[in-house]
Amino acid sequence: MEKWITSLKTDTPQKGFELAIKLAQKGIEYTQPSEAIRKKLRPKYSKNADSLIHASEVIAIHFQTVAAANDYWKRTGLYGR
Amino acid sequence: MEKWITSLKTDTPQKGFELAIKLAQKGIEYTQPSEAIRKKLRPKYSKNADSLIHASEVIAIHFQTVAAANDYWKRTGLYGR
Amino acid sequence: MEKWITSLKTDTPQKGFELAIKLAQKGIEYTQPSEAIRKKLRPKYSKNADSLIHASEVIAIHFQTVAAANDYWKRTGLYGR
Amino acid sequence: MEKWITSLKTDTPQKGFELAIKLAQKGIEYTQPSEAIRKKLRPKYSKNADSLIHASEVIAIHFQTVAAANDYWKRTGLYGR
Amino acid sequence: MEKWITSLKTDTPQKGFELAIKLAQKGIEYTQPSEAIRKKLRPKYSKNADSLIHASEVIAIHFQTVAAANDYWKRTGLYGR
Amino acid sequence: MEKWITSLKTDTPQKGFELAIKLAQKGIEYTQPSEAIRKKLRPKYSKNADSLIHASEVIAIHFQTVAAANDYWKRTGLYGR
Repeated sequence: MEKWITSLKTDTPQKGFELAIKLAQKGIEYTQPSEAIRKKLRPKYSKNADSLIHASEVIAIHFQTVAAANDYWKRTGLYGR
Repeated sequence: MEKWITSLKTDTPQKGFELAIKLAQKGIEYTQPSEAIRKKLRPKYSKNADSLIHASEVIAIHFQTVAAANDYWKRTGLYGR
Repeated sequence: MEKWITSLKTDTPQKGFELAIKLAQKGIEYTQPSEAIRKKLRPKYSKNADSLIHASEVIAIHFQTVAAANDYWKRTGLYGR
Repeated sequence: MEKWITSLKTDTPQKGFELAIKLAQKGIEYTQPSEAIRKKLRPKYSKNADSLIHASEVIAIHFQTVAAANDYWKRTGLYGR
Repeated sequence: MEKWITSLKTDTPQKGFELAIKLAQKGIEYTQPSEAIRKKLRPKYSKNADSLIHASEVIAIHFQTVAAANDYWKRTGLYGR
Repeated sequence: MEKWITSLKTDTPQKGFELAIKLAQKGIEYTQPSEAIRKKLRPKYSKNADSLIHASEVIAIHFQTVAAANDYWKRTGLYGR
């Protein structure tokens, strides 16, 4: 697979959250590499509340990793809140 | 997407919990950007105990992250309990 | 919402466990604010083993947070076991 | 509720694992306090593989907490493996 | 129950992974002590993809614990990668 | 089983993610050692959105472990972002 990530560091928590989303999607892509099949599944699961909650859970797990890798953006916390 | 988070720091555990809820919701919003569809799903899953427990789980995962980012609001713990 | 938590610190692991239960319940309350609807759901999910196991899981996740916030009640460990 | 836990410390990893099981059960007991109802549910879920796997997951989450509280029984590791 | 674990330390990550599997199995054994019943369940869940993914999840959670207990086998990392 | 892992260290986050995928697969392989059965299950679960999300979750849990084992590839973070 092509290079899709080089670092877990992000400048802001929001970019970290968006990286977490990417990581969650990549987990699905590696498991089901066919874009055609994934696109066919999307309309259904994206209208199913339980699937959406589950997707949000995977994002939450990755966000834990990204946030820790960025030391919770602590410097932002000291000066920027 | 517009800026919706600038820091994981919150003044109190309760505000941290409310931030965890926001993060859980954002995970759903990024996955299903249509507000119309999300609103249609809400009446059903919010009356389903298993969906509510699952939603509470996602909040719990994010709350771990937020609590760690705030060093568990330790100073509150020393003087304020 | 009214103030319902001021600290993650508790005097004992048992009180910490009970705080974890409260956090799990609050996750549900914020998602479904209507007490009437929550009360209607309770008889069913509280008699369903899978729902109970899932509820126990959410408590377990919050208990991780509360235990870490209390440094695992380490002093209790040194003198009180 | 009566006192059922005073410390997360255990002498061995095995006792720690058994404490994790107790914590998982307590999460269910607090959610469904009726012993009669819990006993009625047991025959069914304890013969359902998915329920057993889920129960094992809750134990795993609590075991993380207990193991961390015991510093992963590191001294046992140095001298006793 | 007889002694089945004395330490979370393992010499290699692979032995640590196999210990995680054992921990996941033990969680099921404690919940359903009858070997006869467990054996009867096995043919079905071991041919069900969702059960297998869930079993793999429990192993993943325990592997986190075992890996941390072994300080992620850091010395292996320094000299052996 | 043959040796399939010697270290959790990887040179890059992407290789770490791919190791997390391998760990998730190994959890399934140990539980269902028959390659024939696993191959038969694949077409179905890889076209099921909920199974894919769940698989992505297991990868996310393992990625937490791998990322921590690599100290979140911090040096990459300092110089390479």
